[in-house]
Amino acid sequence: MEALKSRILREGKNLGDGILKVDGFINHQVDPALMDACGQEFARRFRAVGATKVLTAEISGIAPAVSTALHLNLPVVYARKNKPITMPDQVFLTLSPSHTKGRMVELIVSPEYLAGGERVLIIDDFLATGATILGLVRLAQTAGATIVGVGTLIEKTFEGGRQALDHLGVPVESLARISSMVGNEIVFVDD
Amino acid sequence: MEALKSRILREGKNLGDGILKVDGFINHQVDPALMDACGQEFARRFRAVGATKVLTAEISGIAPAVSTALHLNLPVVYARKNKPITMPDQVFLTLSPSHTKGRMVELIVSPEYLAGGERVLIIDDFLATGATILGLVRLAQTAGATIVGVGTLIEKTFEGGRQALDHLGVPVESLARISSMVGNEIVFVDD
Repeated sequence: MEALKSRILREGKNLGDGILKVDGFINHQVDPALMDACGQEFARRFRAVGATKVLTAEISGIAPAVSTALHLNLPVVYARKNKPITMPDQVFLTLSPSHTKGRMVELIVSPEYLAGGERVLIIDDFLATGATILGLVRLAQTAGATIVGVGTLIEKTFEGGRQALDHLGVPVESLARISSMVGNEIVFVDD
Repeated sequence: MEALKSRILREGKNLGDGILKVDGFINHQVDPALMDACGQEFARRFRAVGATKVLTAEISGIAPAVSTALHLNLPVVYARKNKPITMPDQVFLTLSPSHTKGRMVELIVSPEYLAGGERVLIIDDFLATGATILGLVRLAQTAGATIVGVGTLIEKTFEGGRQALDHLGVPVESLARISSMVGNEIVFVDD
C-alpha cells in the first residue's frame, strides 16, 4: 500500500537490530486518516473470507484493528496483557515473547467474547517472527474458533513470520513488506 | 448520547464498588461503529475549541481518541504506561493512580510528539476521580501545551472528576453521565 510505504520511508527510523521506529504515525502518535485508509484496504482484501470477529493484541494493534472492523462491520476483541478486575476468573491465556520488552508477556481473552464457531481475522501492527500472532492463534483455537486470515501493517520478511504462519493455510496480507534493514536503509519487497 | 446510554443499560454490568463493566463494547471487545459515532459526537462538541492534537492514555482510550481525531482531522498521541525501546531517554513522565489496578502507573509521552504551543484535547473512556486525566494534563502542561477540552465516554458524577478538572476552565463533555450505581442499578443524569 503506497501511502503506508511512503510514510515509512519519510518518517520511519531504522534503529538497528531490525527495530523499525514508526512512533510518529502508528506506535505512539497515530495518524487516524492513515489508519482509516489501512483499515479500508484490509477490509477490501479480507471481505471474502467471511470473518465474524477481528482479533488483535493491545496496544498497537488496536487502531488498525478497530479501523478494519469498522469497515467490515464486525466487532473487534483486543487480547489484554494484564487481566482487569472486570474479567472473569476463567480466561483464555497464553504466553508470547515480546520483541520490544525482551520477556514473555501474557495474552488474555475472556471466553465471553471469543466463542467456538467464530471466524477470526487477526490484525496487528507488525509481522516479524510471528510470535504474537501465533499467540493470538492459540487463543482463538483454544476457544474453538477458526482463523480465516491474518493482516499486518508492516511485515519484516527477513524475520520469518510468514513461514511460521504457513501451516494455517489462510491468506496473510501485509500492507508494507520490508525485505531488508541493513545499515540505515529500509528496503521494501518489490510488489 | 442516546446510543451509548442505551448500550450501557442493555449490556453494561454494575459490579459494585463503582465498577462498571463495559467489556463487551469498549474495554475488551470494541464496537467500532459505536466508537465511530462517539468520535463524531466528540468532534461536533469540540470543533470550536481549535485543538491541534488529541491526547489519551493507553489502553482503553485509544479507540475513542482515534475516532475523534479522525473526525477532527488531527493526530492523536497515546501516553504509554511502559517506555518502549523506540522512545528517547528523555521523556515526559508522571505517575497516576490506577482505579482498576490498585497501584500507581506511569504515563509517558515522548517530547517528539507533544510540544509547546500545542492545543490539546484530552479524550478517554472514563471520567471517575479524574486522576488519569489530571496525569495527562500534567504531561501536556510540562510540554508547554495548552489544554482546550476534555471528553470522556462515560462519567461517574459521584466520584468527583468533573470538580477536579474545574480549575482548568475548559469544556468537559461526557457522552453518558452516571449519577448513581447503588445495588445493581445504573442511573443516568437527566440531561
